[in-house]
Amino acid sequence: MRLADPAGYPCGVTDTLRVACVQLNSEADKAANLEKAAVLVARAAATGADVVVLPEKWNALGSADVFRTNAEDLDEGESFAAMSEWARSHGITLVGGSVTERREGREKLSNTCAVYDTDGQLVDVYRKIHLFDVVVGGQRYWESEVEEPGAGPVVCQAEGWQTGLTICYDLRFPELYRIETLQGAELVTVPAAFTLFTGKDHWELLLRARAVENQLYVAAANQWGKHEAGKSSYGRSMIVDPWGVVLAVAPDEDCVISAELDRARMERVRETLPSLANRQPHAYRWPAEV
Amino acid sequence: MRLADPAGYPCGVTDTLRVACVQLNSEADKAANLEKAAVLVARAAATGADVVVLPEKWNALGSADVFRTNAEDLDEGESFAAMSEWARSHGITLVGGSVTERREGREKLSNTCAVYDTDGQLVDVYRKIHLFDVVVGGQRYWESEVEEPGAGPVVCQAEGWQTGLTICYDLRFPELYRIETLQGAELVTVPAAFTLFTGKDHWELLLRARAVENQLYVAAANQWGKHEAGKSSYGRSMIVDPWGVVLAVAPDEDCVISAELDRARMERVRETLPSLANRQPHAYRWPAEV
Repeated sequence: MRLADPAGYPCGVTDTLRVACVQLNSEADKAANLEKAAVLVARAAATGADVVVLPEKWNALGSADVFRTNAEDLDEGESFAAMSEWARSHGITLVGGSVTERREGREKLSNTCAVYDTDGQLVDVYRKIHLFDVVVGGQRYWESEVEEPGAGPVVCQAEGWQTGLTICYDLRFPELYRIETLQGAELVTVPAAFTLFTGKDHWELLLRARAVENQLYVAAANQWGKHEAGKSSYGRSMIVDPWGVVLAVAPDEDCVISAELDRARMERVRETLPSLANRQPHAYRWPAEV
Repeated sequence: MRLADPAGYPCGVTDTLRVACVQLNSEADKAANLEKAAVLVARAAATGADVVVLPEKWNALGSADVFRTNAEDLDEGESFAAMSEWARSHGITLVGGSVTERREGREKLSNTCAVYDTDGQLVDVYRKIHLFDVVVGGQRYWESEVEEPGAGPVVCQAEGWQTGLTICYDLRFPELYRIETLQGAELVTVPAAFTLFTGKDHWELLLRARAVENQLYVAAANQWGKHEAGKSSYGRSMIVDPWGVVLAVAPDEDCVISAELDRARMERVRETLPSLANRQPHAYRWPAEV
């Protein structure tokens, strides 16, 4: 939120942003999810949030069949339309977690994060790059059976903040966050359905590491609890500051967390410990990729 | 350590490695440090360690003047010679933390990690890439005044394990660890004099994150306590497994920690959660470096 600054800050504003993350336990039933999400987005907006982040696959979560059945076109799908309407009616920027997207002429689906501004206009679209092809905790996830990887990183504007878009499994790939940081990201959003089995050991660790090494804010909206098809998500939605301090964390329930981001704080961290300025690109010769 | 395997493992060996980290409080006085390090390397070898890791600037730690005064040639310096002799006499591979190195024809010094094998032969040399030019916790560090950055990453062989070499501040640069992983690293060593001010918030976090995201072992030998010129180091030398489990951690004293690394465990993690195989190099278009 940009407020007039009585002290006469050069730009006439104090440069803060209130971000809220919605934590959900989504089901296979899209109608039920739409109803639940509408309530929680309204609650998030009521915290005074400028930007609201939904979790991954908030509108339909379960087996590959659930994703196939509930896939939507970006222009016509009811979940995409609902997000546009929520953004407009509440006057928020909505980082729309993700929705399984069907694209004309493509054999496979996409795991798509759409961002809407306060007019309900589509700002940008990020398609998940890293597909979770993993058998873990006795449960099989094999996203590439139904989905294809996105083309590349996306950093968009959200209420004047450069916002890097990522989804869930992307969190394990530091190169993606580094690229988005070099593209100017000040905030990275992480909608997720991060599993219970891996989340207990890696969720907070990797969220905080991404914040610290890139000296930016991280806002992560996770699924929690048991879902269709034997899946379980870890919850603990979290907002982390550029020093790695956890500003907000969610308990085990459908809920909203929020925190105020402060650009001056971020700049202070980047000046105090200028690791981004201290990079040595001459030394980063990547091995030939197989 | 490679032991005959009664179960008839194809290679006739069980593929484990005992690694020890030496934690020191080094002074400006080189003779005192050499004496102390000799005792602790012997103690580390007595744990049955195959590989021993010393901390950063174990032979002389303090102001820029201390580094200038105590700089050594790789071929002739007494600290380099001592390490070669310790490796040979104890039959260990020694990852020699770092020593300030003077190189013929170079204007500036280097922060150099030399590795010696069980014959006392020099295996490889890594020169710290990222210089700590930081004022933090009221203390000024400005390594580039006396040192120049190394040319690039180094992965060497240590007792049959591919070992990525890094030093201290490098820990904040995930691209370096990723490159060493893609070059085959199974173990990364982190000699350090990581500050108290930053270490309390970032040391364990970043060590564990590097292990988890690259699915390898991390062995970090830190300085601890107060040094010359107002510097303080965080200690908590640490050995971390590829799932992020902390296998060993040091209390606040001169000491040795050790742990057994198991290649089969690393391979199981890489198979269970194949994030290295799931990378998407097509998406990693780095922005033009400024």
